[in-house]
Formats: sequence, structure tokens, C-alpha cells
Amino acid sequence: MREFRRDPIIGRWVIISSERARRPYAFVKYEREIDSPDTCPFCWGNEKFTPPEIVAYRPSSTKKDTPGWWIRVIPNKYPALRVEGNVVKSADGIYDKITGIGAHEVIIETQHHNKDIYELDQRNVEDIFKMYKDRVTDLKRDIRFEYILIFKNCGTKAGATLSHPHSQLIAMPMIPVIIKQEITGAKFYFEHKERCIYCDIVSEELTRTVRVVVENDDFIAICPYASRFPFEIWVLPKRHDPMYEDIHDNEIRNLASIMQVVNKKLNLALENPPYNYLLHTSPLKDGNLQYYHWHIEIMPQLSGVGGFEWGTGFYINPVPPEEAAKFLREI
Amino acid sequence: MREFRRDPIIGRWVIISSERARRPYAFVKYEREIDSPDTCPFCWGNEKFTPPEIVAYRPSSTKKDTPGWWIRVIPNKYPALRVEGNVVKSADGIYDKITGIGAHEVIIETQHHNKDIYELDQRNVEDIFKMYKDRVTDLKRDIRFEYILIFKNCGTKAGATLSHPHSQLIAMPMIPVIIKQEITGAKFYFEHKERCIYCDIVSEELTRTVRVVVENDDFIAICPYASRFPFEIWVLPKRHDPMYEDIHDNEIRNLASIMQVVNKKLNLALENPPYNYLLHTSPLKDGNLQYYHWHIEIMPQLSGVGGFEWGTGFYINPVPPEEAAKFLREI
Repeated sequence: MREFRRDPIIGRWVIISSERARRPYAFVKYEREIDSPDTCPFCWGNEKFTPPEIVAYRPSSTKKDTPGWWIRVIPNKYPALRVEGNVVKSADGIYDKITGIGAHEVIIETQHHNKDIYELDQRNVEDIFKMYKDRVTDLKRDIRFEYILIFKNCGTKAGATLSHPHSQLIAMPMIPVIIKQEITGAKFYFEHKERCIYCDIVSEELTRTVRVVVENDDFIAICPYASRFPFEIWVLPKRHDPMYEDIHDNEIRNLASIMQVVNKKLNLALENPPYNYLLHTSPLKDGNLQYYHWHIEIMPQLSGVGGFEWGTGFYINPVPPEEAAKFLREI
Repeated sequence: MREFRRDPIIGRWVIISSERARRPYAFVKYEREIDSPDTCPFCWGNEKFTPPEIVAYRPSSTKKDTPGWWIRVIPNKYPALRVEGNVVKSADGIYDKITGIGAHEVIIETQHHNKDIYELDQRNVEDIFKMYKDRVTDLKRDIRFEYILIFKNCGTKAGATLSHPHSQLIAMPMIPVIIKQEITGAKFYFEHKERCIYCDIVSEELTRTVRVVVENDDFIAICPYASRFPFEIWVLPKRHDPMYEDIHDNEIRNLASIMQVVNKKLNLALENPPYNYLLHTSPLKDGNLQYYHWHIEIMPQLSGVGGFEWGTGFYINPVPPEEAAKFLREI
């Protein structure tokens, strides 16, 4: 079974994705992080342990599914969604569901088994972000999809089951509730002020400076005013653009650069914390919105707390973002 | 510093709560669960290690802050909010904040150091839920408060720092975003159908039965249709009522009973999982809403995943609720 189900009250879509054969309690035991290059399916030489590659950056002299690549994209071996079929919306008693159609891909970020972003060559990091753009541009042509979510889990506590650096991409036939909320909020603001709220945030933070971690010509990294988590960081482009896939080549260079600096600072400050980042970008069919502004949200996973925030959307953060930003600026 | 800060886009309030003296990175190391009755501040004889009690159920022959009680309510020793002061709303540059006023209490659920709900006498469990009612009724008279959130973290992975059974209560001057969303969704439904959506869910689930875990005269426990987590359970009263504090005495008996059964089933099925539960009830000043319906949401914390769901509001659940419910019914 793979389907989207809509919470009838909130309107939140959830993917219910199971394999029939197993017993319920078996589903919930997650695998440990695989930490040895010998058995790592994302390392050179182990390409046969993954589904066939979708695309890779590799020397033209090398073949598909062989070593030599430096970025490699594959379908997730245990996909939450399947790519074949039609988007069918139907009632289920008083509830609503949609067939679990979508793409679920893994972007292997480097051939190096155990390097974090800041330890890679900058060119390698640029190519990660270039590959994101390529995948979005490619998948966008599939009219079944409404949204493409790109995210990274690094560390077991952040949800990673493999330690080899990788990000994930989920293309889906609806818009996630968090993006809907952002768009609603940003639109409301725009209707009153005729300005993009994210542009205003960039401008406010550049003026006040207390929450700035680092900036360059194209990007600013801040600890946001209402940070949910200690050391939460948002990386925002200075140029207004709703769609990540519009990013220019020189911006990719500066994005790679700021992501490396931020990653290094977080690793130094917090001793290689598990973290997640998430690319917030415009829905695929919304056109060139004046009020939305793509950005990346980085969330180090520091505390042992778990379920409460999941269930409530209510956050208690013991580290003021001004203190976190100061600490990261000075490290 | 203790203040509420509003995310300018989503409108989500976050509590920023810090102690000045410590260095930022020190804030993020959580204490381990304290597991020995000798040092446990929630055990009989250690009352001096907690702030003075607010109220307790205890024999009239015993004194405040001495042993003998079976339910004891104290202020949180490390409160996220402070109770003294006025609710001041102000601008902070382009942002909004409110002084961190509120109550943050701990409800110690029993004198027994290491018993889960199902292992207690039913009378003890009834008194936990009776105490919730008493605290809400008392705090409701404070006109500064808009909402009272009651929740339980059980197990380190669910955010508990002490293993002695306890719940927490936070009274605050605004409504959490998840409750706002529920009310908006429930109101929308009511405007179209003139029925409470939760009453419709109760009726649908009683008819279809596939997602029912257990029921009694007053309550039904279901795995909800769009469960975010494996083995997520909602306990809903069959009688429509927006406000928990309206609960009748006979309902408290049946609530205690169903919570014990559910807790026992979860512990058997999932080998004593860490879990959270959260009491969803009406905002304090909204009166007798026809479209809202109090309930309890229970979330076992089974998987190692963490940050992704926190950041996105997007959930992938590998266990269909029908399978979870069947498994729990039969155990």
C-alpha cells in the first residue's frame, strides 16, 4: 500500500507506505546507520547494490552504474511512493485519499564515504546544488507533480540510515502543508505591503546584524527570529526569486560557499551534530510568485526531545537566536 | 530571557527561554533520565528537591511537601515561562513578541517511581485525569491565559528527563498553531455540514470498525485515518464537548479505563515504547463551540527519525492504521 491520506481536520497529507508481507511491529524497527565503506551501497564499486542510476555527473569515459562519478542520483531502494500510475483522488468513507504516486530519489553527494559538506572541494558542493536544479528541472515536466521536496538527513538522530553523504528528493501530487502555510502567510503580507516578506527579513537582518551568521554577495545565513531549534539557520538568497531552479551559476558558487561555511561553523560549535536541511521552494505550477522566496532551512538536532514538538507544532527553544548567531559568527 | 516570538510568515509562536549565565552550547546538552528512586525528586521523601507544591491529593493528616500524597502538582523547576507579570505585546523590528508569561507545572502522577499507566490502580489513574480537570479549572480564572496545554513525555526518546511518571501543563497567553488549525478546519466543516467533524469521525469509525483499538460507553480509541506515526492513537469522547474540563465523573472513570487498556496494549505490542500524549481541548475563552471536540492524541516514538518531520510537517508512515489497530485489538 502506498497512498496519500488527508487529515480531515487540518488538511495535512500523510504518506501511508507499507509492504504487505511484514508484520506490523517489524515496520517500526529502523536499520542502524551503515558505517563501513565495504558494505556501503553509496560507495564506488558497490553500484550494483542500488537500483540503476537515473543520472550522474561522471567522466564520459565511465559507464552507468560503475565507479568514477562524483554525484549520482538513484531511485530510493525503499521508496515511499511509486512513479508509475495515475493520480487518482477518491473518497474513503468520510475521508480523502490520493494514490501514492511520486518520485523518491536519492542524491549521493560525493564518492567520499564519510565527509561532511565543508570537507568536500567547493566544486563538489556546487555540483550537489547544480544536481538539485537539474532534477527539479527534469521532474517539473511531469504534469502529475505539484511539489518537489529536497532535503538532507545527516546522522542517525536526524533520520539517516546510511552515513554516506546523500540528500533525498520527493516529487508529489500535492503541496506540503508547511509550504501552503508559508505561501498563505507571505501572500497576506504582500497584499498589505506589496513587498515580499522574505526580502524584508533579509533587509531587516542585514541592518540589525545580530542574527547574521555569515553573508556573501548572493546569500545571507541567519538564525531566524522565531527559531524553533537551538542553532536553527536559514540561508536566504538576497535576490528575490520564488523558484530554486532559477538559480544562476554564480549564485550556485556562492550558495556552495555559504553552505560550507555554515556547515563548518556548526560542526565546530556543536561537535558534528546530526542535522537536517530542507529546500523550501515554490510549488511547481504557481508561476513566478512575487511574494514567495526560496530558501534553505537547516536544523541541527541537538536535544533528546522528540515527540512533543512533532505533535503540537509548539516549540520551546532554550537558545536565543542572537546568542547562537554570535557564537557561530565568532567561532 | 523568556518570551514568545512569532514566526512572521507562518504565525507560529515559539517560546525562547534561556538562562543568561550559561554559554550557548551548554544549553543544548540535555540531562539524562534520572532513574534511581534515591535521587528522584518526584519520589516520596525527596519533596524538598522540588519547588513547593501547588496542590496535591494527599491524606488530610499529612503536610504539604511531605510524603503521603498520590498526585502532586509542582511548578516546573526549569520553567519555560514565568507566572508573574503582565502580558505585553510589542514589535521587535519587523517582528512580534509577547512577554514570556505563563504557568509551567508538573503533575506527578503517582508515588510509584517506575510504573506506567496500566500498572497503576485505576483509582490512581482516575485521579490523574481529575487533577488535570482541577488545574484547568483553577488556571482558567487567570484572564491572562488563552490556552492550557497538557501533555506527557514518557521515555528519554520522547523528551522526558525524569523517568518517574509525570505530565506537564503549560498555560499561555496565545493559542498554539496546531489548535488554531484544528479549529479552523472543524469550523469550515461545520459551516458546510452543521455537524462536528469529530462526532462524524467517531460515528464513521464505530461503523467501519477497522481502525478501532478499543471502546467503552464513553470513549473510543482509534488509529486515525491519516496517522502521522506508526501506532498513533486518538482517544475521543463519544459525547460532544469542546472543553476537557466539562468531563463528568463517570467519564473520568471510563477515560482512565480506556487509557489503561491502550497503554497496556502499546506496551505489549511495542515493548514499552517511549511515547507522548497531548490533550487537545478548546481555547479558554472560546465558549461552548459546537464544532470543536476535545480528545487525546497518543504518539509512540518508535522510529529513530527526527528532524525532517519537525521541519516540514510532512509525514511518511510505514504502518497503515488499519494494521496497527488490528494488531492492537488482537494482542
